[in-house]
Amino acid sequence: GSVMSTSINLAVIPGDGIGQEVVAQGLKVLTAVLPQDVKLESKQYDLGAQRWHRTGETLPDAELEALKHHDAILLGAIGDPSVPSGVLERGLLLKLRFAFDHFINLRPSKLFPNTATPLAGRPEIDFVVVREGTEGPYTGNGGSLRTGTPAEVATEVSINTAYGVERVVRDAYERANARPRKKLTLVHKNNVLVYAGHMWKNIFDKVGQEYPEVTTDYLHVDAATIFFVTQPERFDVIVTDNLFGDILTDLAAAVTGGIGLAASGNINPTGAFPSMFEPVHGSAPDIAGTGKADPTATILSVALLLRHLGYEAQAVRIEDAVSADLAERDGTFRSTDAIGDALAARVAG
Amino acid sequence: GSVMSTSINLAVIPGDGIGQEVVAQGLKVLTAVLPQDVKLESKQYDLGAQRWHRTGETLPDAELEALKHHDAILLGAIGDPSVPSGVLERGLLLKLRFAFDHFINLRPSKLFPNTATPLAGRPEIDFVVVREGTEGPYTGNGGSLRTGTPAEVATEVSINTAYGVERVVRDAYERANARPRKKLTLVHKNNVLVYAGHMWKNIFDKVGQEYPEVTTDYLHVDAATIFFVTQPERFDVIVTDNLFGDILTDLAAAVTGGIGLAASGNINPTGAFPSMFEPVHGSAPDIAGTGKADPTATILSVALLLRHLGYEAQAVRIEDAVSADLAERDGTFRSTDAIGDALAARVAG
Ligand SMILES: CC(C)[C@H](C(=O)O)[C@@H](O)C(=O)O
Ligand SMILES: CC(C)[C@H](C(=O)O)[C@@H](O)C(=O)O
Repeated sequence: GSVMSTSINLAVIPGDGIGQEVVAQGLKVLTAVLPQDVKLESKQYDLGAQRWHRTGETLPDAELEALKHHDAILLGAIGDPSVPSGVLERGLLLKLRFAFDHFINLRPSKLFPNTATPLAGRPEIDFVVVREGTEGPYTGNGGSLRTGTPAEVATEVSINTAYGVERVVRDAYERANARPRKKLTLVHKNNVLVYAGHMWKNIFDKVGQEYPEVTTDYLHVDAATIFFVTQPERFDVIVTDNLFGDILTDLAAAVTGGIGLAASGNINPTGAFPSMFEPVHGSAPDIAGTGKADPTATILSVALLLRHLGYEAQAVRIEDAVSADLAERDGTFRSTDAIGDALAARVAG
Repeated sequence: GSVMSTSINLAVIPGDGIGQEVVAQGLKVLTAVLPQDVKLESKQYDLGAQRWHRTGETLPDAELEALKHHDAILLGAIGDPSVPSGVLERGLLLKLRFAFDHFINLRPSKLFPNTATPLAGRPEIDFVVVREGTEGPYTGNGGSLRTGTPAEVATEVSINTAYGVERVVRDAYERANARPRKKLTLVHKNNVLVYAGHMWKNIFDKVGQEYPEVTTDYLHVDAATIFFVTQPERFDVIVTDNLFGDILTDLAAAVTGGIGLAASGNINPTGAFPSMFEPVHGSAPDIAGTGKADPTATILSVALLLRHLGYEAQAVRIEDAVSADLAERDGTFRSTDAIGDALAARVAG
């Protein structure tokens, strides 16, 4: 946790597709919830598909440098079918996560009232995935030999360090210890990925000795997907590697009523670099500009941002507003803007 | 497809936990369904946790050699908590898949009547995952440096070859082309795993030119998990890498009414080595010996085995029997043995 500041100097990267629209609602709610005496400054950064088409740039050094001087970053969504797969992901989104050492990728999953979970029986779901954000198969390590020929060999190297695993595991224990159920589940695949998997498990067990009140559990990633749909209520805090966390949090979003509600924080708890908050969903170019995008995931990401900056009461206010708003929803269509307005009105109250 | 033989020389590896029990039912149904003039010989191999505890061996060369001379292998389940994670998986199960070049890991998913899917609305589900079986992050390539120290680095290398990818992709196109809907979805993560992911996508597109009637689609693995729960009916044939296939097929089993029904074949379509058939579930030591294990997944794996050996009519007979049996199920408990008896009676009819 950081200390509450009396001004927030925010960087905003709306990005592509619905990114612009949802970020506008996030800022609307942020403005509405902040106490009068907190000065909010924000600067927009033009990064994403259009910028790349125009200039060939994804994230120039000058902008990376400028971003460092903000208190936090709010990001909409990155990606467009007109850009080759990987260019913006590796060159912009992952570049930010790696450059700012966002080793905690925090993804809470909660089944809100009235949400359309595909699960029969509506189990209680309230867990948080602590996804490692700077290692694993995401490092970009690997290559391709004899590319495009029938003799091609392509590799991807998952890199895992005790340094990187211990810090995320410790963070997850802290979070579990602070929750009523105090339960932490490690998800990996240590029966196949024996080198990385055993290191994760050993560190998980070792750090666990410092948290005697936390109940622990281990699941292989394949088995974990089963429990996500058959018994999601068994989870409290989950800690896992970068790729497994990517997969599991989309699944978590699906079972808790949709990717329209899934928030995330790319957090550097040391404060050495700004943390970055973004909805889990993508840029959804098919609905961009139609007013159909649900800004709730972005607004919930703003709550995570506020919590990170020390505005706990304001974060809770947003989360409660979302809960109350969904509880009263009657199923009629509401535009992106209308949802933003409704939530802004509630938090301002 | 192979040519129907008038004798079957089967290797049986019951393995651990419920493996013994479910394999017994599989053999019961196999015996019942085979025409009188087909000679069934089978030899049991004592491999798994007990053997390892007794002798320290997982799969000695002599047994690997002996296994080669069978027409097919029926495997129950491998693994026990008393054995360190990875020892039996890498030393026995994966060793067999790699030694016998089982590059097609075939995993059909179908929502049978009356099965307890956790999905509301019971969508129609009938797809098959063609999981690559001999490459990707499963090769055992990688290592650990300064093991156990705070400076440890552990790597896992995913190895992918054009040779390996093309053969599984081609097999998947063949399967899609033979099905009424003729739809093939590639699942990967080519926006992050750009080397392997782009090679998979390029080969997928190239081979696709030879199958103009097959409709194709690409999904990132994280997005695929969402569709597995919100819209599983969109899938027909899925082709994917070894690890993504592992994760997705457990999820598929969960949404189609449980791991008790998920069958699989580790297939070498060239016939150079025997193919191996096994339920997707594990050894479930917690219910071993209680008569609670559902042998249906093993019995459906026997159907895949028969299809592979050219006994299509008999394979269909088993699948129809399972369907009819489930349709008439009234929810009362039936033991492992009772389910086997019921299905044996139906197929013998
Ligand atoms: C867009 C992609 C690089 C990203 C990821 O894989 O982390 C996304 O799926 C996410 O979960 O934030
Ligand atoms: C037991 C394990 C090695 C295996 C795998 O990961 O392939 C299992 O999960 C499976 O799906 O057959």
